[in-house]
Amino acid sequence: MPTILGQNQYGKAENRVVKITRDGATHHIKDLNVSVALSGDMDDVHYNGSNANVLPTDTTKNTVYAFAKEHGIESAEQFGIHLARHFVTSQQPIHRARIRIEEYAWERIETSGEARHSFVRTGQETRVTQVTYDGESWEVVSGLKDLTVMNSTDSEFWGYVKDRYTTLKEAYDRILATSVSSRWRFNWTDDAQPTPDWDASYAQVKQHMLRAFAETYSLSLQQTLYQMGSRVIEECAEVDEIRFSLPNSHHFLVDLEPFGIKNDTPDGAVYFAADRPYGLIEATVLRDGCEPRIPVDLTNL
Amino acid sequence: MPTILGQNQYGKAENRVVKITRDGATHHIKDLNVSVALSGDMDDVHYNGSNANVLPTDTTKNTVYAFAKEHGIESAEQFGIHLARHFVTSQQPIHRARIRIEEYAWERIETSGEARHSFVRTGQETRVTQVTYDGESWEVVSGLKDLTVMNSTDSEFWGYVKDRYTTLKEAYDRILATSVSSRWRFNWTDDAQPTPDWDASYAQVKQHMLRAFAETYSLSLQQTLYQMGSRVIEECAEVDEIRFSLPNSHHFLVDLEPFGIKNDTPDGAVYFAADRPYGLIEATVLRDGCEPRIPVDLTNL
Amino acid sequence: MPTILGQNQYGKAENRVVKITRDGATHHIKDLNVSVALSGDMDDVHYNGSNANVLPTDTTKNTVYAFAKEHGIESAEQFGIHLARHFVTSQQPIHRARIRIEEYAWERIETSGEARHSFVRTGQETRVTQVTYDGESWEVVSGLKDLTVMNSTDSEFWGYVKDRYTTLKEAYDRILATSVSSRWRFNWTDDAQPTPDWDASYAQVKQHMLRAFAETYSLSLQQTLYQMGSRVIEECAEVDEIRFSLPNSHHFLVDLEPFGIKNDTPDGAVYFAADRPYGLIEATVLRDGCEPRIPVDLTNL
Amino acid sequence: MPTILGQNQYGKAENRVVKITRDGATHHIKDLNVSVALSGDMDDVHYNGSNANVLPTDTTKNTVYAFAKEHGIESAEQFGIHLARHFVTSQQPIHRARIRIEEYAWERIETSGEARHSFVRTGQETRVTQVTYDGESWEVVSGLKDLTVMNSTDSEFWGYVKDRYTTLKEAYDRILATSVSSRWRFNWTDDAQPTPDWDASYAQVKQHMLRAFAETYSLSLQQTLYQMGSRVIEECAEVDEIRFSLPNSHHFLVDLEPFGIKNDTPDGAVYFAADRPYGLIEATVLRDGCEPRIPVDLTNL
Repeated sequence: MPTILGQNQYGKAENRVVKITRDGATHHIKDLNVSVALSGDMDDVHYNGSNANVLPTDTTKNTVYAFAKEHGIESAEQFGIHLARHFVTSQQPIHRARIRIEEYAWERIETSGEARHSFVRTGQETRVTQVTYDGESWEVVSGLKDLTVMNSTDSEFWGYVKDRYTTLKEAYDRILATSVSSRWRFNWTDDAQPTPDWDASYAQVKQHMLRAFAETYSLSLQQTLYQMGSRVIEECAEVDEIRFSLPNSHHFLVDLEPFGIKNDTPDGAVYFAADRPYGLIEATVLRDGCEPRIPVDLTNL
Repeated sequence: MPTILGQNQYGKAENRVVKITRDGATHHIKDLNVSVALSGDMDDVHYNGSNANVLPTDTTKNTVYAFAKEHGIESAEQFGIHLARHFVTSQQPIHRARIRIEEYAWERIETSGEARHSFVRTGQETRVTQVTYDGESWEVVSGLKDLTVMNSTDSEFWGYVKDRYTTLKEAYDRILATSVSSRWRFNWTDDAQPTPDWDASYAQVKQHMLRAFAETYSLSLQQTLYQMGSRVIEECAEVDEIRFSLPNSHHFLVDLEPFGIKNDTPDGAVYFAADRPYGLIEATVLRDGCEPRIPVDLTNL
Repeated sequence: MPTILGQNQYGKAENRVVKITRDGATHHIKDLNVSVALSGDMDDVHYNGSNANVLPTDTTKNTVYAFAKEHGIESAEQFGIHLARHFVTSQQPIHRARIRIEEYAWERIETSGEARHSFVRTGQETRVTQVTYDGESWEVVSGLKDLTVMNSTDSEFWGYVKDRYTTLKEAYDRILATSVSSRWRFNWTDDAQPTPDWDASYAQVKQHMLRAFAETYSLSLQQTLYQMGSRVIEECAEVDEIRFSLPNSHHFLVDLEPFGIKNDTPDGAVYFAADRPYGLIEATVLRDGCEPRIPVDLTNL
Repeated sequence: MPTILGQNQYGKAENRVVKITRDGATHHIKDLNVSVALSGDMDDVHYNGSNANVLPTDTTKNTVYAFAKEHGIESAEQFGIHLARHFVTSQQPIHRARIRIEEYAWERIETSGEARHSFVRTGQETRVTQVTYDGESWEVVSGLKDLTVMNSTDSEFWGYVKDRYTTLKEAYDRILATSVSSRWRFNWTDDAQPTPDWDASYAQVKQHMLRAFAETYSLSLQQTLYQMGSRVIEECAEVDEIRFSLPNSHHFLVDLEPFGIKNDTPDGAVYFAADRPYGLIEATVLRDGCEPRIPVDLTNL
């Protein structure tokens, strides 16, 4: 045969599951989007259409909903661990499971009465996680996306290479804005180790990332990125690696000179927020001595 | 000529303007998306391509940025009023200006230091406004979109019409979730009247809307809608009319019986959050005696 | 009561229905997205939650699928007529039905064999229609959206108004590009009249629109719009009114002078295709003597 | 230092470039979205903000536009090769360049006159390519996305694994629909080899893929995928590896039994086209003896 099958995986993507837990009149909500990808002895189905080793994607969907009820959703990561373990241990032909989860955050609506079952979506960033299990060891990569941040000063950009095609003017006080997409890998890999407190860890990683962004006097977005990453690694012992994909969301100072208006004054300025093109800065920061495992391209987690 | 020109308007849409104001080390941010639409003596440009009465859309864009600097952005509504007045009064052929604005909200990043120039986008709802001026009177319609809310109980649906095509089972305890899109019209129309406090009004309308949603024991989404609208009209004297477009974001109780799992218990349940199709409930609530002026279809504001 | 209910409507939106018809080994496909909106005696459900007059939106969904099977889908318009008539005539409390349909186009995949059941989506424009019925007369408005077109020459823009904020340079050979959104109203209103051939009409309207765009030497996008509209009215006797929403999709000539490259030569040029902001030109063209009925804002059909 | 820098890259993403070439009255159009990512000696900018080795992303944007004029755009792949070679050979600190390009297709508008400068976007699939160069060897991966296809019969699914959570019924005549995302790697790696005819290759790969989809009697989407891949490898000597990401776009037969309507007849049927969740089938097909190099997750090319 002149062609052969390479890496393959299959499953049900984007299972939207909402779990309400009632604690008397007080309700709690978990709102997830869960995608399952399974690999294993799947040559036959590709070569000749035999489904004898194929657990239907519909079944993987059912499993997600059943587990949400039976095991509950303690955190996105813990829910992914339950699911991945189930698929690998319950089905002999399945050797590897990868569970990806997006989690949407809600907060309570304040009311004058006793109502404790009303919520509004916060909509700031989306929390994500990816749990992979091959029957022996675990890889948990968590992250966030669409966390839009801005420093309205304390950002410069100068001293760069100039070639024939360079027209950019150096900047000594610019806006630095980005929409953070980040993934970080936990050093928990083994059932014998205690698991991190996943929710507490998420809150801390996000807080350190935001503070490092705010507190860095920036000479380039690369420098800010590295400060954000090293702050997380230094402060969060459970994380060994973090990767960022940071669009440089350009805010161009508008030229108001033709109208006799000065647009660069101590009391503030007006900017044009551009869509495309945008700079795109991507890098990994590692705990010294650790190997990188997060893929170079983040968008698809 | 067998054909004639009807209603027409033109302008620059989606001017993204960010204004930073510096109050010493403390910065403030306004982040808008401004669309201009102008009407007037424009027959010639349509019939024979003469631009003699046409102020270029590029000029309307420049005006937005210049006004952001010269006049500042006190609120989205006030900024729209400045712009609309300018276009109608400064250009003889322009008889009507309509300014639409989306406003994006930011909050400060808390840091350990003195930084007061770092922000994160809140991303909950998007605030919108539309200001229309014809040289004599004003119409201001403000609103919001993508405000996603949920009641995890206190919602029923039964007693409805049944025909040949009805299969829906009655529900006595369901999730009620929607993504609120709403527009409300102010009774300020005249320069001689004092203008409302636009920002305070927005905060109050939103709060009353959320509370009415949370506090209504619902027998149908229509009933909840009416309660939200009448609460706003009753509490906010500056508003005479409010319209809602409320998708009924279906959360279907998952059937776990085939797996021997009960999914309808006092301690909570698991739901499938569906995308399409969705119920869509739309209605206007008016102060008694007032005429409706908000268009039936909201999406485009 | 200080507040009253205004215009209201409800129904199931975005029912995705695919109908396959088999003519021996040759299959045919209809692919629609159908939204139902019903109005009538609905005060009670808003005021006190009584659903006694409410046909559930779930039932309207079922009706769409049942009608697709029982009555077939001859065209989007004809399908909308069947549905609207059904809701108004079968339910006493319903006085008005509005059916909106998007139709997606597919073409056959050419094969070496006999297969006549394989299709690929064409993806050019999306065809839309809106059918409204109040028990007495009909209004059919059809249209299209996302039909992206470009003239790479024969477009100028000069002779416009200049004010303090004008910096735009006049253009004598520019790209004219837009993404056409258009709606046209048929003069068929009465069951006693024969209906147009809806599919043939759509093909002709689109062809005349495209040709008028291509054949007009343009001094402004407004002029091109009017030519497109009047061509349709003149050539299609079944259409009395047409409205366009045409973004001016700016293609800016890139300044390559800093690199010693001339970018304005007889053999072609390089352009930056911008996203936002964009000019937005909207107008109605009417058959002389007819009244306008298409709303000013198109996006939501 | 407890943290170190890992893989990093930067550049300007999504440069929208349109090139018009004039051949007398006949114009030709190339419409690209170009993203540049550069890697090299970039430790300093991350560790301490020194931009001494940084060619600004703004310069990479300028280069894209200048090259479009100076070198023309023969094909997306050839344009990527010009750019990648330039960045690696002209800048000592840059060791690797990766150019990603989306290409949008246009066709001529037929007119009654002589006009040869009017175009309409075809909008079927989007063509993509990624060219990577490290100063020594080349990797070219091309592909397409959003090619939506359907077989209305000749698809079955049965004989699969059943576990506690399986409720799916076996299907002996179902719709098979997907939106093809595919990437294929060329075996051209060396300047000494002649380059493929990139445009001809693209047309052939697409045609073979579509035909294999249409001509395969399918027992599972995995089997169809493998047939599509092996057909391309067998017919296109210039391609050694191909990967697919195929959502199983479920079309569920609607249950019309409650209305006394049979929906499974020889003359066709009515389906509900679902959005989420969806099966997702991903696999690589390789020429025997070749190593896989295309990443497992495609979406981000």
